[in-house]
Amino acid sequence: MSDYTKMWTDLGLDNDNHNALLEALGGAYQSIYMAQEKRAKGMEYFDFVMSEAHGLRIKELCDEKEAGKKIIGSFCVFVPEEMVLAAGCTAVGLCSGADFAQEEVEQVIPRNTCSLIKSFFGFKLGKVCPYMEVADLIVGENTCDGKKKSFETFKDLVPNFYQMDLPQTKTPESKQMLKQEFMKFIQQLEEMTGNKVTFEGLKQGIASVNAKRKALHRLSSLRAANPSPVSGLDALLINQVSFLDNIDRFTENVNAICDHIELDIKENKGVKEANLPRIVISGCPMAVPNWKLPSVIESSGAVIVGEESCIGERGLRNLTDDSATTLDGLIDAIVDRYFQIDCAVFTPNNERVDHIQEMVEKYNADGVIHYGLQFCQPYIMESFSVEKQLEKKGIPVLRIETDYSQEDLGQLSTRVEAFVEMIK
Amino acid sequence: MSDYTKMWTDLGLDNDNHNALLEALGGAYQSIYMAQEKRAKGMEYFDFVMSEAHGLRIKELCDEKEAGKKIIGSFCVFVPEEMVLAAGCTAVGLCSGADFAQEEVEQVIPRNTCSLIKSFFGFKLGKVCPYMEVADLIVGENTCDGKKKSFETFKDLVPNFYQMDLPQTKTPESKQMLKQEFMKFIQQLEEMTGNKVTFEGLKQGIASVNAKRKALHRLSSLRAANPSPVSGLDALLINQVSFLDNIDRFTENVNAICDHIELDIKENKGVKEANLPRIVISGCPMAVPNWKLPSVIESSGAVIVGEESCIGERGLRNLTDDSATTLDGLIDAIVDRYFQIDCAVFTPNNERVDHIQEMVEKYNADGVIHYGLQFCQPYIMESFSVEKQLEKKGIPVLRIETDYSQEDLGQLSTRVEAFVEMIK
Ligand code: SF4
Ligand code: SF4
Ligand code: SF4
Ligand code: SF4
Repeated sequence: MSDYTKMWTDLGLDNDNHNALLEALGGAYQSIYMAQEKRAKGMEYFDFVMSEAHGLRIKELCDEKEAGKKIIGSFCVFVPEEMVLAAGCTAVGLCSGADFAQEEVEQVIPRNTCSLIKSFFGFKLGKVCPYMEVADLIVGENTCDGKKKSFETFKDLVPNFYQMDLPQTKTPESKQMLKQEFMKFIQQLEEMTGNKVTFEGLKQGIASVNAKRKALHRLSSLRAANPSPVSGLDALLINQVSFLDNIDRFTENVNAICDHIELDIKENKGVKEANLPRIVISGCPMAVPNWKLPSVIESSGAVIVGEESCIGERGLRNLTDDSATTLDGLIDAIVDRYFQIDCAVFTPNNERVDHIQEMVEKYNADGVIHYGLQFCQPYIMESFSVEKQLEKKGIPVLRIETDYSQEDLGQLSTRVEAFVEMIK
Repeated sequence: MSDYTKMWTDLGLDNDNHNALLEALGGAYQSIYMAQEKRAKGMEYFDFVMSEAHGLRIKELCDEKEAGKKIIGSFCVFVPEEMVLAAGCTAVGLCSGADFAQEEVEQVIPRNTCSLIKSFFGFKLGKVCPYMEVADLIVGENTCDGKKKSFETFKDLVPNFYQMDLPQTKTPESKQMLKQEFMKFIQQLEEMTGNKVTFEGLKQGIASVNAKRKALHRLSSLRAANPSPVSGLDALLINQVSFLDNIDRFTENVNAICDHIELDIKENKGVKEANLPRIVISGCPMAVPNWKLPSVIESSGAVIVGEESCIGERGLRNLTDDSATTLDGLIDAIVDRYFQIDCAVFTPNNERVDHIQEMVEKYNADGVIHYGLQFCQPYIMESFSVEKQLEKKGIPVLRIETDYSQEDLGQLSTRVEAFVEMIK
């Protein structure tokens, strides 16, 4: 591994803090990822990206910046990557998955805030996230109260912040509003880059993002196999890497691992025993390195076969129709696609439970574990009706409410083991 | 007191639960309100309304219903009372201020929900709120995540529910959206009543609501006097009663108490000693019978001189301009007026801190106590920047986070006393 210390210092990272984070990350990766007995062939690439997530990948982004590209960081899958690409920029996901600098964080936002929000404050205040520092623009959105209100404070901690308004319902008026907001976002991108978002550019952006989604759909579909050809932990990792990696190289490598997996499936080979209890996880997004619950689940003798999450199928489900012949037509197609995202911040959000059920059927799952981050009102509120509706259809549900700490690990294991035992 | 048992039973109340609630309420009223040493002349009316809040007032509403009127219940000052009146309906506020049936509530919504939301679920599940039962339509709104998402469950517990969408920002587009939503609301009222909202009707509605607001502004202004001519507890009570009482009678009685108070002020008489530490409360609304924090404050030797709250000046601040000559013009004036409400669900919401500061100046306050209901993300998030900005101007702030339980009473008193000692 090269020495990136100078690059990190230049980016403004705090070296001591950053080393502490890297060490913790490396330790978790070893004990959770490298400790898996069998892994799908092709995972080496994603292991490599992860090991170079703060190194080589940041170097690449710095080089892109030097060549005049802008890096756009975001916290939500509502920020349309197609448009970012069309403006000649690179998109990175900033949703953060680990506690850091908690004491400092609780000086500026309430203790009763979800771990994800606390995490991006901690990464910023502790100066440990090179993606946050490398970004030329950070895009926030009016989704949950927690993000919406905490961005008022966060925006002053970063040099360039842009806030996207979002609707709260799925009415025709709301769709019109989403379009307006996407148009404003294009304008913002154009102003900061000096590039124009053209029909050709947007078409190309859509092609890249669709190709990535298609590759990830392909991977998802393969997880229907029994025995499981890829662990849930590894599939989650691939989804997490999709927010950091170069998009086209990433797509290529997802397709490559799918080729390997297809061969394994033909030979009836898997990375797990056959006929293990099969779980769909549903709920809040799980950002790197938030592997606690998946690790507990797969250590309890079950296998995760799908993630109904924004780092998973909720974020990927639909492709953008690329058949329009005008720029405005392409923008409408993007609006159509994003407007279908069934995030719990919308009311009502009935499609989500249908999608969970579809996933249970498609991946032959035996039960659903609903993952709610403590203090996340949208998802935890919604989990009550999700549970009720799924159980009515005979699908067992376990509702978990947790955070990024390791304190509830024992209790979590006990509850998950009991659930896995029950659905066996 | 007449026996209203039959009326309550007919409304569908649970008699045992309801008696338990009335007893608790009566006890609290005695120990908090009747125990005050001195009270402004004219408070007898409001004491009477409170004592008959579940009796005579409900009888009146039942009579109105029999005469063909519809009763509209709501949880938020964004629901325009002018329109409710113009449609020939009566408006009642349902924001609930006490815990009830907590175990049942936590079966359907998360434990980590603010007390206000839990309370209206508890009142409904425990069948103890005659206002909820007497209402022909209950209006919810997309304000905070907690209400927005919990209404998805609540709507199935009541016969007629209507959800109003609201913007999250104060842009021109958001104002347009508010107008659309208010137009839809008028349509809803017209459909359910068969009445038309006319220019004359709306003008009359505006007149009634403006008169109420003017009377309450008058009361607020009088609280600038030293010694205080009315306790903060009593002023809060009057504001709380405004959500339940007949509007025109209420206005008359507010003006009547103001007449008494003006005489007292001329004679330099007050209900408190002169020169007590003066406090503005700011934050979440305090619904009947949520008197915990005000009672702690006024027992600690301070006096509350203003409430920056929706049950207080945030809900009342502006009058609706009644000079338009068309129906659409009046609707625009209503939109203008409501769009100024500086609720923490908006982002950004910078006007609010200016308003708090204005109140501090106007009422000669020595400090601000920010009242946040536990798990209320909008207000608790915002309290951090409110505190920072006010302290920059030399205004001391105490941030309190509490709920409807009595468990933190000791701790609350200690903190409030220390603050009052400090600002003396
Ligand atoms: S869960 Fe909702 S707010 Fe979070 S990333 Fe997904 S769409 Fe955005
Ligand atoms: S987990 Fe929930 S509360 Fe946290 S950022 Fe996502 S939607 Fe908001
Ligand atoms: S605080 Fe906000 S949501 Fe609550 S009543 Fe006031 S305006 Fe409505
Ligand atoms: S107190 Fe806060 S969380 Fe509770 S209903 Fe009001 S705005 Fe929503």
